[in-house]
Amino acid sequence: MYDLAIIGGGPCGYTAAELAGREGLSVILFEKKELGGVCLNEGCIPTKSLLYGAKVYDGVRHADRYGVTASPPAFNYDKAFDRKERVVKRLVTGIGVRLRNAGVETIKAEASVKGRDDEGIIIVAADAEYRSRNLLVCTGSEAAVPPFPGLETAGGTIVTSRELLSLREQPSGIVIIGGGVIGMEFASFFNSIGTKVTVVEMAPKILGPFDNEISAALQDIYAKRGVDFRLNCKVTAIGERGEVSFEDAGGNVAAVSGEKILVSVGRRARLENLGLENLGVEYSLNRAGMPCGIKVDEHMRTNVPGVYAAGDVTGFSMLAHTASREGEVAVNDIMGKNDSMSYKAVPGAVYTNPEAACVGLTEEEARSKGIDCIVNRLPMTFAARFAAENDRVNGICKIVAGKRNHEILGVHMLGNPCSEIIHSACIAIEQGITFEQLRKTIFPHPSVSEIIRETANAG
Amino acid sequence: MYDLAIIGGGPCGYTAAELAGREGLSVILFEKKELGGVCLNEGCIPTKSLLYGAKVYDGVRHADRYGVTASPPAFNYDKAFDRKERVVKRLVTGIGVRLRNAGVETIKAEASVKGRDDEGIIIVAADAEYRSRNLLVCTGSEAAVPPFPGLETAGGTIVTSRELLSLREQPSGIVIIGGGVIGMEFASFFNSIGTKVTVVEMAPKILGPFDNEISAALQDIYAKRGVDFRLNCKVTAIGERGEVSFEDAGGNVAAVSGEKILVSVGRRARLENLGLENLGVEYSLNRAGMPCGIKVDEHMRTNVPGVYAAGDVTGFSMLAHTASREGEVAVNDIMGKNDSMSYKAVPGAVYTNPEAACVGLTEEEARSKGIDCIVNRLPMTFAARFAAENDRVNGICKIVAGKRNHEILGVHMLGNPCSEIIHSACIAIEQGITFEQLRKTIFPHPSVSEIIRETANAG
Repeated sequence: MYDLAIIGGGPCGYTAAELAGREGLSVILFEKKELGGVCLNEGCIPTKSLLYGAKVYDGVRHADRYGVTASPPAFNYDKAFDRKERVVKRLVTGIGVRLRNAGVETIKAEASVKGRDDEGIIIVAADAEYRSRNLLVCTGSEAAVPPFPGLETAGGTIVTSRELLSLREQPSGIVIIGGGVIGMEFASFFNSIGTKVTVVEMAPKILGPFDNEISAALQDIYAKRGVDFRLNCKVTAIGERGEVSFEDAGGNVAAVSGEKILVSVGRRARLENLGLENLGVEYSLNRAGMPCGIKVDEHMRTNVPGVYAAGDVTGFSMLAHTASREGEVAVNDIMGKNDSMSYKAVPGAVYTNPEAACVGLTEEEARSKGIDCIVNRLPMTFAARFAAENDRVNGICKIVAGKRNHEILGVHMLGNPCSEIIHSACIAIEQGITFEQLRKTIFPHPSVSEIIRETANAG
Repeated sequence: MYDLAIIGGGPCGYTAAELAGREGLSVILFEKKELGGVCLNEGCIPTKSLLYGAKVYDGVRHADRYGVTASPPAFNYDKAFDRKERVVKRLVTGIGVRLRNAGVETIKAEASVKGRDDEGIIIVAADAEYRSRNLLVCTGSEAAVPPFPGLETAGGTIVTSRELLSLREQPSGIVIIGGGVIGMEFASFFNSIGTKVTVVEMAPKILGPFDNEISAALQDIYAKRGVDFRLNCKVTAIGERGEVSFEDAGGNVAAVSGEKILVSVGRRARLENLGLENLGVEYSLNRAGMPCGIKVDEHMRTNVPGVYAAGDVTGFSMLAHTASREGEVAVNDIMGKNDSMSYKAVPGAVYTNPEAACVGLTEEEARSKGIDCIVNRLPMTFAARFAAENDRVNGICKIVAGKRNHEILGVHMLGNPCSEIIHSACIAIEQGITFEQLRKTIFPHPSVSEIIRETANAG
């Protein structure tokens, strides 16, 4: 009999397991593949390893701007691939150690719920039965692949981010269907290393919910570097030799092709084979009336007492950092501690070169919610360190704040290393910090981070 | 007649001038050299430009770790020098534009105070007289050069950071007297580009007030790269051909030599020729009873009504970001706004490669003040992005917090890009944020910044 059984060893599962174990609960965690989940094994971390390789490559190519003479470099795909594998392996091992140190029992097997009796929730994995007082379901998500006509016959040409990360050879050309964060990170990577990239996006802009101006500026940067963007284009068919046919807003039909076609149009919660119907767990439904996630409240409780769901499987805010925080909230609720989820300061980052990062409301969102707001905006070169480290590159910092009290509602940035700066905006929004309070904080000079204080002062 | 006269156009002066101008005051600013002061013209910004060149050079040399094949690069000193000049020039121009936009009148001349009459404070510059209701003195500081025996005859071999930044040729070897922030940044730069570096430091550690463990770790990194550290060594004489003689704690005498000798043992407030005695402005005195700065209160007021001093000229917390904040406080006081200086969260950063950054109390300081505290500590590789971007490099994150409420008192980091992360710790300390509040903040994953949240959780 366990206090907590966790199905899924991704960012939600391993974070929750470690916390629960350290809090003294007896914890069992089921993971059918590797600890770390999609994020660590086939998502964020491997892409960031490769993207860093591409960034180093970009750095060598432009070294002369900074007084360093270097002959044209070569990107060694195989070596970058091996390094990525090493980084992932080391981090997966690290999670295993942390879980062991927290006293968590780990079972490498697919698990499903059989039901419940007086002694607890019954979970079956690899033919054995386990009983637990509480259950946390965090089985994550997988790439959604719409049923494009021709998909079945296109074979290995069509890949999701998962298969693309296992590719051992650099493709000569790639068509990316979907210009969201995943699509743009792969576009950035392949563009840097010299693969011909085409992005086909149904919406009129890339990067979905990102600030319009920042999306447009990043698109412009990559368009200048040779990425072919086809916005407002709906894919109509996939051909046998890597052709992607699409129709633009005006009804015009065209096609592009590549050695590989990446489908990165979104992700879907993994709800199958979990046996949750044996407990009567309720799902959220999408517009078509189909289950798209496990329904939870702000404590990550499902409708069934003792059963929690968190992470991508909720179908909501599908991000690793949301997942790990949700896992903590679930464990704190089990422990009887006062905690609940807040989604008002969930950051988003895209690790292109330059990076973009955002948190909170965009100007458009604030206005559509009827919030009386002001928007301050500065080019990144207002931060002296940005100017000292970025030749022929600029960026943007925008802050949305309440009109009356100047409390920070949203921060949107383009320019390196904004993904490392944005966390202060998360703290600021979560704590309700105002421009006035930010002004009284001393930021290190020179740093790119000063742009936040400068922008708050720019009104 | 002006509302505010400012003597000195560095970070304090230009920040105060812009703010005051935007607030509607009539402002005149006197600067004898270039706008931007030491920081922009001969300090932070030129060093950061050069250091970034060295970082790019390091990046090319180690590119193979990340799958990029590049032949050995060459550091083009002349080109890096020219770029540094361009960066500085562009930023100086930018400050001029900002001041003009704020309606500030700028006079390029040395200014001094003649006295005061019924119409205001009288300032003389380039044979003209100006009258102002208020005066802000922010003439900054200059490198202190102790009277080492032999100094007079050593000639051009001996330099301060100012002359070193004007050097057009890479020296073959350099002896750096003083292993503080300035000394270590030049040690880092010259070590990267292949100059033989020796650091002679009187104290038993480098980086003065930085956390002991972080100072030691950074020293260890540079010692492995070939920098020769002579700690606990007091310079006794300078020879004619670049020899530096010193005595260690045990009384043993030795000498090292280099083509250049950098003296970076500290800075002294610029108090000369200001005519402040004509107003009766009081000074702070050093242990020898000599004036070492203008005495001010927490509103940057001197003992004379309407006369303010801020920045390095106070002889206290000699940092550009302290100076600009002090300038704001002075202007807010003139405007009758409620504002005062807080020094509890003044960050420090050293832009070596890797960088170190800190803010607030070290463990040693907290204990010596009798504060009941806890110290959490993690290696930087606990942040997955750090692991993905740093091969064969680790770092440290330490957080000092109150024992009972876990309010953050100090954060100390070693590892890139901590100088861009530390500002969130400044906000946290200034706002009294606790571990509990930090835990409820979602940090972007993967980012190095997560190490702060992880460390808060590591207790």
